[in-house]
Parts: sequence; structure tokens; C-alpha cells
Amino acid sequence: MPNHWFEFLKKDFVQGFPAFCGFEVLRADYCIFETCLKVLNQHRQQDGFVHAGVIATMADHTSGYASFTTVSEKFRILTVEFKINYFKPATGPLIICRSKVINNGKKIKVAESEVFSVSNGIEKLVSKGMFTQIAVASEDIVL
Amino acid sequence: MPNHWFEFLKKDFVQGFPAFCGFEVLRADYCIFETCLKVLNQHRQQDGFVHAGVIATMADHTSGYASFTTVSEKFRILTVEFKINYFKPATGPLIICRSKVINNGKKIKVAESEVFSVSNGIEKLVSKGMFTQIAVASEDIVL
Amino acid sequence: MPNHWFEFLKKDFVQGFPAFCGFEVLRADYCIFETCLKVLNQHRQQDGFVHAGVIATMADHTSGYASFTTVSEKFRILTVEFKINYFKPATGPLIICRSKVINNGKKIKVAESEVFSVSNGIEKLVSKGMFTQIAVASEDIVL
Amino acid sequence: MPNHWFEFLKKDFVQGFPAFCGFEVLRADYCIFETCLKVLNQHRQQDGFVHAGVIATMADHTSGYASFTTVSEKFRILTVEFKINYFKPATGPLIICRSKVINNGKKIKVAESEVFSVSNGIEKLVSKGMFTQIAVASEDIVL
Repeated sequence: MPNHWFEFLKKDFVQGFPAFCGFEVLRADYCIFETCLKVLNQHRQQDGFVHAGVIATMADHTSGYASFTTVSEKFRILTVEFKINYFKPATGPLIICRSKVINNGKKIKVAESEVFSVSNGIEKLVSKGMFTQIAVASEDIVL
Repeated sequence: MPNHWFEFLKKDFVQGFPAFCGFEVLRADYCIFETCLKVLNQHRQQDGFVHAGVIATMADHTSGYASFTTVSEKFRILTVEFKINYFKPATGPLIICRSKVINNGKKIKVAESEVFSVSNGIEKLVSKGMFTQIAVASEDIVL
Repeated sequence: MPNHWFEFLKKDFVQGFPAFCGFEVLRADYCIFETCLKVLNQHRQQDGFVHAGVIATMADHTSGYASFTTVSEKFRILTVEFKINYFKPATGPLIICRSKVINNGKKIKVAESEVFSVSNGIEKLVSKGMFTQIAVASEDIVL
Repeated sequence: MPNHWFEFLKKDFVQGFPAFCGFEVLRADYCIFETCLKVLNQHRQQDGFVHAGVIATMADHTSGYASFTTVSEKFRILTVEFKINYFKPATGPLIICRSKVINNGKKIKVAESEVFSVSNGIEKLVSKGMFTQIAVASEDIVL
């Protein structure tokens, strides 16, 4: 992957809702994307755990950028559907998401995300999801 | 449902991440919960649509409270897993989520959420999801 | 729907694996398909319940034909992915599946299936699933 | 895993619907189960591909037995829900399914299955699914 594309991905990733949530980019390679989040109170649910929606958003967005590494800048990646399982409560203080494309179709991509809660340097797998996405030419997207 | 329970649910719903997102409660009945969101720029993704993560969070959280109407205050509802489909881009300016419990097991609950983008009073179904949840006694939850 | 199309669907439905399983067509309308199965020992799992795979197959196949009612004979419907929940064990002696298209996109279809176990005329909802399908021109399908 | 347990699993696996389908056991280890199927015409759908239901059944059943290796003979594994993606059409003549438990909770298990179509010794990944199961004491199962 050319370096300017990596820089573009890192910048493009943190707009709108993902920027609002506070996700940061750790790694971008062909078919691979990794991000992290420093957990704040605003990310928690009523019992103090990281909200399932934060984890789903992180897993969806990171997997979308994993697929975005496989297309040219003329394309966008939209989520068709996803499924996510929650294994254990995530408490942080750090959350890491590792995504990879597992079926790199020309139009339909399938990616996986694994989410880890990190405490004292120990990673605990808290969630895993599968994401079906579609690559759409930017010019075909109308707001 | 006793009125104090409805008032409790409305207050309990908007803490942490859901409060941060800006969800509001529209309706709470036995097995049913409905919420809305006024769409701001912070809810959008790179193409200007409401982010899939906002919709997933709203659908997950609202369905969790639909199930929460079926248990006593001694229980909490945790998400085991969910699956969500995105039909059309959501642009707002208002998003409504309607959730209902479709299998009210004693321990395992399954709920559905339908998410609508509302513009000029016209509702468009943009997303639907199925959520598997588990009812856990509050005393068994350890942070 | 023209009558010859209904007759074609009924005949086309019961080939290969679905015929082997023994599914029968109850109803075909635009966006709707319903089937039934008389439960035999060969449909059960080790505990005597109808096997999850029988129910998944029935729910997938019936939803595929619900989508098939929306396209011309030049198209085929292939399953992209699905998710299914099991609510209660199904024991029969009759199983009914009711499917409908809930998002009728030109290329991507989303359908739902509800599966009922029927005993003494009483229907019990035992399973529900969501199916993402793609309409492909027959000429583009190569074995 | 004691050898008599492996022999029991192999025998127990092929009853009812799985026996009817023709699945065979390749491997059983702690958290792992692998099976194969020689594709016959009765396993195909209208276009000649292996039916999505055959693949779903194989993936569900094999993953259930992967979880079954983690409990004592007093327990049974029931499917709560699953999600499966189809990447490419499967044509055979051989199908292999490899399942492993990815979250080995005491009561709730999550397993994954990967399904491969094998032709001339070359394996092609055609499908992947995630399965949520529950371990239930045999005495609590009532037909």
C-alpha cells in the first residue's frame, strides 16, 4: 500500500461519529485495519461496562476500513449487514479492534473484527463480529 | 406497567454512551420500547449518512430496554449477540427506533428493532435487527 | 402474479435438497412464500427435536422463493448470508414456514422467515431468521 | 480427550438428519470438530450448487459437536442462534467443515465453522459461520 494511501485512510477514518467516539488508528495494511479507544465514562452503559454500541461501532468501522484498503479512492464501502457476539464485559481502560477481510469479492466484501479489552498490558477477547459490505463507486452515492 | 417503572426506565435509559449519543425515550410498554434521535453532524459518517454504529447502538439499546420491561428491578439485560441489516442510507433529520420482544424466555430474550429515518413527517425503514439478550441478576454482575 | 408463474415456482421449489428433505409449497404471492414439512425421524437430532439444520434449510429456501417472486424468470436468487434464532424445540408433527421480503432492493433482497411447529392445530413460533440474498442473471451463473 | 469419548462422539454425531445428509466425522479434539460430505445430487439446489441448507446444517452440527467436546456426557448442546455467510458457490465433489470453539463459557458457548469445497485436492473456502449454543443438562431436556 502506498504511504499516501495509508495517510489518507488514517485521516479519513476519524470523521463524524468515529471522531466523536474517539477511535484512533493503530495500523493499516492490505485487507487489515486496527484501531484503539481510550475508554471514558461516556463510553459506558448503566453497569459500568463499555457499551455494546461502542464495541459494535468500532468493529463495524474498523472492518469497513479493512475493506477500504482493497479498493481505489473512487470507491466507498457501505455496510450491508453485520452480526456481533459479546463474550465478556469490556471494562478497559483500553480497547483494541483488529479487523481483516476474509472474503475479498470485487463488489461484496466480508470482514471480521476481534475486539480486545486491555488492562495492565493483558488483552482479553471480548467480542467478535462478521461484516458484509458493498463497494460502491463514489459517484453513485447521492446524499 | 406501573408508572414509577416507566419513569425509572426513561431515566435509566439515558446514561453513559446513550446519553452521549443523544437518544430520547418515546414510549415504554410491556415488551415494547421506542426512542428517537435528532441527527447532528457528529452522528454521520464520511459520506454524510447516519453512521451504521449510531443505528446499531440505538437498535441494541432500545431492544435491551424492551426486554428490561419484562423483568423486575433486580435484573439487568446484557447483549449476547445481535445481527442488523441496513436497507437504505439514513439521512434524518430525525431517527426513530421501535423495538419489541419476540421471544420472552425467562433467561434468554430475543427482541427486534426497526429503525426509521424521518423527513417531512415521512418515515422510511432504513434498518432492522435481531438481538439475543440474557437477563442477569444485578447482584451477579461484578465490574 | 400470473398463474403459470405460481405453478413454475411450486415445481421449481422442490428439486434436489429441498425435495430430499420433503418440503411442500403452501402459498406463493408477490414477496411471500409459505411451505410445510411433515416431520419424520430423519428430520430429527439426537434429542428427538427437529434438527436446527432442517429448520434453517426450510427458512432459507422458503425466503429465497419469496424473493424469487419479485424477479423475472431470467434471474436466480442466491443467499449472501443469513442469521436465525431458535426459540423453542420443534417437535412437529408438522412444521410450517412463512417468509416475506422486507426490503425489496433491485439487486439485494432481505427476507424474513418465521417457522412454526404445529401440533393438534396449535401453532408455536419456534424460530425466526433474516436472509440477505442477491438477484443474479441466470446467464451469469456458471457451474 | 479419552478415546472412548471420541468414539462416542463419532457414533453420536451420525444420527437422524445428519446421518440422512451423509456427514462423516474426520476429527474430534478438545474444542475442535471436523467433518466431511461426499456431494450427491440430493445435496444440490436448482443451479447445481450444494444447497445453502446443506452447508448451514453441516456448519451448525459440526460446531455443536466442537462444543460437545467441552462438556461431560450429562450435558447436551442446543443452538441458540447462528449466522452464516456464503462466499462462493460450492460444487464439491467433497465438502469439509472445520469447527472450533472461540468462547468456551460454562453455559454459553460460541463456535465458528469454516466450510471448504474440495476438488482435485484443492480446498476453496466457501462459507463461514458463528454459532451461539447453550449447554443444557440432559435431565432438563423434555421432549
